[in-house]
Amino acid sequence: MPDLESVVRDIAEEMRERSDRGDVATYIPELASVSPAAFGIAVAGADGEMVAAGDCDMPFSIQSISKAFTLTLALGKVGDRVWRRVGREPSGSPFNSIVQLEAEHGIPRNPFINAGAIAVTDIILSGHQPREALGEILRFMQFLAEDNSIFIDEAVAASEQRTGFRNRALANYMKSFDVLENPVDYTLGVYFHHCAIAMSCRQLAMAGRFLAHNGRNPATGLSVVSAERARRINAVMLTCGHYDGSGEFAYRVGLPGKSGVGGGILAIAPGKASIAVWSPGLDASGNSHLGRIALEALTQRMGWSVFGV
Amino acid sequence: MPDLESVVRDIAEEMRERSDRGDVATYIPELASVSPAAFGIAVAGADGEMVAAGDCDMPFSIQSISKAFTLTLALGKVGDRVWRRVGREPSGSPFNSIVQLEAEHGIPRNPFINAGAIAVTDIILSGHQPREALGEILRFMQFLAEDNSIFIDEAVAASEQRTGFRNRALANYMKSFDVLENPVDYTLGVYFHHCAIAMSCRQLAMAGRFLAHNGRNPATGLSVVSAERARRINAVMLTCGHYDGSGEFAYRVGLPGKSGVGGGILAIAPGKASIAVWSPGLDASGNSHLGRIALEALTQRMGWSVFGV
Amino acid sequence: MPDLESVVRDIAEEMRERSDRGDVATYIPELASVSPAAFGIAVAGADGEMVAAGDCDMPFSIQSISKAFTLTLALGKVGDRVWRRVGREPSGSPFNSIVQLEAEHGIPRNPFINAGAIAVTDIILSGHQPREALGEILRFMQFLAEDNSIFIDEAVAASEQRTGFRNRALANYMKSFDVLENPVDYTLGVYFHHCAIAMSCRQLAMAGRFLAHNGRNPATGLSVVSAERARRINAVMLTCGHYDGSGEFAYRVGLPGKSGVGGGILAIAPGKASIAVWSPGLDASGNSHLGRIALEALTQRMGWSVFGV
Amino acid sequence: MPDLESVVRDIAEEMRERSDRGDVATYIPELASVSPAAFGIAVAGADGEMVAAGDCDMPFSIQSISKAFTLTLALGKVGDRVWRRVGREPSGSPFNSIVQLEAEHGIPRNPFINAGAIAVTDIILSGHQPREALGEILRFMQFLAEDNSIFIDEAVAASEQRTGFRNRALANYMKSFDVLENPVDYTLGVYFHHCAIAMSCRQLAMAGRFLAHNGRNPATGLSVVSAERARRINAVMLTCGHYDGSGEFAYRVGLPGKSGVGGGILAIAPGKASIAVWSPGLDASGNSHLGRIALEALTQRMGWSVFGV
Repeated sequence: MPDLESVVRDIAEEMRERSDRGDVATYIPELASVSPAAFGIAVAGADGEMVAAGDCDMPFSIQSISKAFTLTLALGKVGDRVWRRVGREPSGSPFNSIVQLEAEHGIPRNPFINAGAIAVTDIILSGHQPREALGEILRFMQFLAEDNSIFIDEAVAASEQRTGFRNRALANYMKSFDVLENPVDYTLGVYFHHCAIAMSCRQLAMAGRFLAHNGRNPATGLSVVSAERARRINAVMLTCGHYDGSGEFAYRVGLPGKSGVGGGILAIAPGKASIAVWSPGLDASGNSHLGRIALEALTQRMGWSVFGV
Repeated sequence: MPDLESVVRDIAEEMRERSDRGDVATYIPELASVSPAAFGIAVAGADGEMVAAGDCDMPFSIQSISKAFTLTLALGKVGDRVWRRVGREPSGSPFNSIVQLEAEHGIPRNPFINAGAIAVTDIILSGHQPREALGEILRFMQFLAEDNSIFIDEAVAASEQRTGFRNRALANYMKSFDVLENPVDYTLGVYFHHCAIAMSCRQLAMAGRFLAHNGRNPATGLSVVSAERARRINAVMLTCGHYDGSGEFAYRVGLPGKSGVGGGILAIAPGKASIAVWSPGLDASGNSHLGRIALEALTQRMGWSVFGV
Repeated sequence: MPDLESVVRDIAEEMRERSDRGDVATYIPELASVSPAAFGIAVAGADGEMVAAGDCDMPFSIQSISKAFTLTLALGKVGDRVWRRVGREPSGSPFNSIVQLEAEHGIPRNPFINAGAIAVTDIILSGHQPREALGEILRFMQFLAEDNSIFIDEAVAASEQRTGFRNRALANYMKSFDVLENPVDYTLGVYFHHCAIAMSCRQLAMAGRFLAHNGRNPATGLSVVSAERARRINAVMLTCGHYDGSGEFAYRVGLPGKSGVGGGILAIAPGKASIAVWSPGLDASGNSHLGRIALEALTQRMGWSVFGV
Repeated sequence: MPDLESVVRDIAEEMRERSDRGDVATYIPELASVSPAAFGIAVAGADGEMVAAGDCDMPFSIQSISKAFTLTLALGKVGDRVWRRVGREPSGSPFNSIVQLEAEHGIPRNPFINAGAIAVTDIILSGHQPREALGEILRFMQFLAEDNSIFIDEAVAASEQRTGFRNRALANYMKSFDVLENPVDYTLGVYFHHCAIAMSCRQLAMAGRFLAHNGRNPATGLSVVSAERARRINAVMLTCGHYDGSGEFAYRVGLPGKSGVGGGILAIAPGKASIAVWSPGLDASGNSHLGRIALEALTQRMGWSVFGV
């Protein structure tokens, strides 16, 4: 059995030296200005240990990684009624495609493409003011990570609000099919803000622990969700967590994972670890280039793929 | 830890009594005449034990389940060059969709939709006569199952040949993009025949063992494929093995699996078991209705989902 | 040569008696409350004569018929640069489809589907305040019809504003590709208002005269557009004027035409007449059911099809 | 009124001198070897006169232009039942797209895309041997052109048979929906052969006369089809005759027309002339580049657009 600490340290070292780093997202200045040289990794193990390396304490914009947590919240709020408004099949399409929505009457294919995540946000929002809903999401992240310093980067949220025409198109399109209940601007406001949550790899790995441990916090033993629900969220992450690169991630890494355009990836090794990596350069599918490579190395060396022993 | 034998026996009993059985495929008479009352299950465990119940010894048409084995053969033959002719992303489309092929220049999205499996068959065929290629596939199945009585149902193959216009369209379409190397009729002939292989649940569970055990036959210890390749085939099965019902299968069952229109499903619990179920009634996505339900019950009771501990 | 007056009178009579009247649009209350019994027709001939019958003086919501006039205005304003932002091919899609926009990078297929008309409105708006642009459009209609009583139905505009989520999706989608220059809300405000212009058949037939007479007002001889531009607008009306029912309209009626969801159709018999019909019941493609039938009868009896002598 | 002879002579002269000639089709050697320098034009006027210039007597492969004549034959054989198997809406898609077929259950959008023309050929074939059906089509062309020397270029037909995988895909796809009645190979054999008919501009202009003159041969007064049917075929030619370049052709030329990949175009000026042009270089939509430009010049100078006086 390899030693996790040395594996993580080696990987951080290898990633630091690679010259292929992908392309940093440029659609808003706040993301464009992040250094492509950054790389961080943090692994929260089964016995409560934390192994981290590189820029593991630098906060980054978690962006779509938040979708795994809003899905968890929405399932907690309305249970399986979530699936009346969003499917759970891989889409075979880029993150912001609108084509599928037309064919399927405004029902997004899954909760991890933008349209689906907006619908999930709308579920969380219902019955609340936007500020309350957003507070609930942020507090959930702080609770899971056991760290109240986690914050929303208002500059990122404002930029997304100003330029998010494609997401506005998706939301209005769903609204035309009555898939959204709340005013489009309210739902999008909450959505843009929860995507703008800033976290470090260490905080993110902490937040994902319940998915690796049958729904429980392994340190306290407290249950966040049922074991079945944790399994099911992992299943959706594996089949849908990387847009039209989901098959590739499953093939190479072999773990449930959720990526964000900020360059972060949360990956879950059930029964073993919650893993966060971050490197801002992206591949053609919009997923962290070095992040995926680091996870592939980690699962191979640790034997953590869900598809082998 | 529940007892596998009693779990399997209970499930077979429960399935026998259910009145919801799905609809038997009717596009060829040979499949249409199969009794919807049939249900079989077989589990080949890690220590070489075999637990089976119901119609576990009745041969059925494995149809698309053969695609998992032809992919294995093609990877053995040309390695990763397979992926030049077929992708490995879920398609978000039904099994016989041609739309995706137009958008992606004749390259099928994955090896488990019909177009992709035809491309894989073409790889196996290259350099051989159809009869030789077909013999190689059949002998591979017999070798894996350790049973030379496995046969091709010629009546099924002949019916598919006579009525398979959609597959003929897919093959000609790929040929127009030079994705197929061999004459369309040769490739389709081999394809229709390997889909017409008849096997029982017991034989199929035996044949799948190498995927559950890091590429090795657990009884003999002989390696069929490398551990990495076994993991990767499992990954493709999980993300793509049930057409546009793949997300649903992952969500409910939590195992890599490959279904066939004859009502069979092969599922792999890595490190634990190779499982075959068969019930000819299908759900709306073309996957065995009771087969999926039986697998969901099995993984829940045994704790075999790859997404939990 | 049949007598136009008796032909028009006969058609109005026949339409009044038909029981198949299509379905009145119900998406906003202002349209839903219009009586399906209404039918009007007006024909403005080459020598300045006007023949009208039925509810020919009752104002109705011209809706998408306004798109023929906004295209004329935009061509007058920026010339062929219009075609940098909108194509001129039939779409093969319903009026509000968003699928085509994704495939073609936000460029609408033609100026008569909703997306294309919104892009055309954006061209007219550029450099102006919404109120000014709207005033320009309204005055253009009044000028063409020689009737200053033509007005915008504010209740209709307000309803469209409140419920037009699909159009808002289209506009935001184009904005994400920089196809729109102005704030989305400004452009949509002008768009919803010019669609809410109310006119009678008599007014509409007057307004269309320049298209039937090589760009000139046949009464005054004054030129509105060049002869070539009039021909080209007619060509776009014939190939694209009825959404995915354009081929059917050309096949049955044989004239350039533009329909609106309010039940009106403007048709142009080049060299002969500008024709307006109105009946609020729609067919499956969203075009006036009796309007199309009346035009088919008119062109057959008068020998006005552009496809025969 | 300009003089037709000098207009035609001028245009032939201008076309000879242009250096932009498009790209000759290269998918079969028989088309690839045609000189891009060729240009021919022939105009069959209302009073039986024929004006021709350039390579007007050189036979070329009429390819898809044959679809206008097979549609005429099929309408003569089964009347409006043709429209049960093929639509009459513009497709918004390239000539050989298969996407639309999947969405519309195997019914081609119109008779002038490849799929639609194959369905039309299948109608003509029903009840006959392929050889008989092909003979009927060829004799129809010879009869219309009053020239028994018109022939099928067997080398072209053989090349198309050998390489026509896309058409074979379309045909098998329709067969899977029972849209074709005959064996796929029979229908395709007739289709490939009628596309391989070779004609000169002079012969083609002669053959198209009935469409320009209300269904009659203007020389003999004999009726080929009814006036209404001639108008309707013209309408389908105008909306669908140039694939996804149909809107552009209507906009620029303003006449019903049908193009072929051999570089020919047949255009109809109702009441005035049947026009054939030929220049083998194609534009991006697969239509003759100089052919379209020559027709645009001809209709402008003669005032023949159907969209103006």
